[in-house]
Amino acid sequence: MSERPKIRLYVDHALQPGQTVDLSREQANYLFNVMRLGQGAELALFNGRDGEWRALVAVAGKRGGSLICDAQTALMMPPPDLWLLFAPIKKARTDFIVEKATEMGAARIIPVQTDFTNAERIRQDRLQAHAVEAAEQCGGTFVPTVDDLQRLDRLLSDWPLGRRLLFADEGDVGRSALLPDLVAGDPARLGQGAGWAILIGPEGGFSPAERDRLRALPFVTPIALGPRILRADTAAVAALTLFQASLGDWR
Amino acid sequence: MSERPKIRLYVDHALQPGQTVDLSREQANYLFNVMRLGQGAELALFNGRDGEWRALVAVAGKRGGSLICDAQTALMMPPPDLWLLFAPIKKARTDFIVEKATEMGAARIIPVQTDFTNAERIRQDRLQAHAVEAAEQCGGTFVPTVDDLQRLDRLLSDWPLGRRLLFADEGDVGRSALLPDLVAGDPARLGQGAGWAILIGPEGGFSPAERDRLRALPFVTPIALGPRILRADTAAVAALTLFQASLGDWR
Repeated sequence: MSERPKIRLYVDHALQPGQTVDLSREQANYLFNVMRLGQGAELALFNGRDGEWRALVAVAGKRGGSLICDAQTALMMPPPDLWLLFAPIKKARTDFIVEKATEMGAARIIPVQTDFTNAERIRQDRLQAHAVEAAEQCGGTFVPTVDDLQRLDRLLSDWPLGRRLLFADEGDVGRSALLPDLVAGDPARLGQGAGWAILIGPEGGFSPAERDRLRALPFVTPIALGPRILRADTAAVAALTLFQASLGDWR
Repeated sequence: MSERPKIRLYVDHALQPGQTVDLSREQANYLFNVMRLGQGAELALFNGRDGEWRALVAVAGKRGGSLICDAQTALMMPPPDLWLLFAPIKKARTDFIVEKATEMGAARIIPVQTDFTNAERIRQDRLQAHAVEAAEQCGGTFVPTVDDLQRLDRLLSDWPLGRRLLFADEGDVGRSALLPDLVAGDPARLGQGAGWAILIGPEGGFSPAERDRLRALPFVTPIALGPRILRADTAAVAALTLFQASLGDWR
């Protein structure tokens, strides 16, 4: 592997030696005006499938340009098969949750509408762009998919067979166990299967009906996040941390 | 214990049955204009020392007012003796780190100036106010102290005897171990002593000289935070999570 360049760009091209990559106007503006790269300069490319590649600037124009792909600088490292479900809140905190979930290695991010969620719609394209930017920053080779807003009740009704849902119930501080202890106590149940998901509630918590339903579902495991009530963005990072450190790719 | 009211206010008074608490102009504005409480309404008070108390509005004025303290609704729960050291970055992310450190149960927050930190000064009063607000929100009974900006090199030279420093080295992904594994491997060394501190680096990382010094100090233990490079605010929550789940008050 060659040394990894600092500037990283997500592109939607196949990456292989000698591959030409044409740039969009936004990409050219970022590389040549913001980052001030010139012809022959090095950068890193990734597409979410082929790992990370070094590329050289072939043509640097004001409104476009092209790169030539050179050598692979990092292997593809897909995250664990982990979804993050969260109820969108204020715009800035929703952006933060998408950014943090990407850094923390979620494979798919699903905004969900709960009984106490105010959001009727989200800007899926804007959130997906946040995930791309976070992947460029954190050195990852994977960009999680951000879904459009879904109703939690429907998602639970169509829940995929074998996938385990870890439910961070902020309204129930003290009654659930920590994920690492749950894993140690029953590794077969929690450590295998067809993937995982983490569900973080909205600022106002879940409704009593939602909480009852969640706790009764056979694929749901409630998890604890300590004695204080965490904001949704803090809870997302904390739950992802405990997952990655006990079942995920931090080991 | 009585039921805990939803609206919470940090005050700088002793709290005991029958205690009168006079309100500042800002506090009166928050309670009577923003939250629209009237005479006789209930709220929760805490002062960082005496747990949480229910209080009733005695006088609700436009520019002031007073409360009468009634009964204790939660015991005092001090966090572990844990400091968070971080290098201040952009204003919004610095605010977030203080908010998150409070929610996550740090006892003291110390902004540090490192070789690659741009900040020359911080607004200590503003950051302390953020910690108060976060404590009011998260249901805690404790407000961490936010120090003024200190130079990391001096802090390390005067390091208190017996306190262990957990060093999250983002520039060294993959070479350190996870805190829960370190604790399991050597509980006597990491689990006892005169408190702990977590050090999170600036966005640009530590300088080579700083990193060498940190790794050579006998009270420093490097800790890993997974294969991706985390932003400073994400790294702070992740490191605090692993601490609280393995050595702190999440157990």
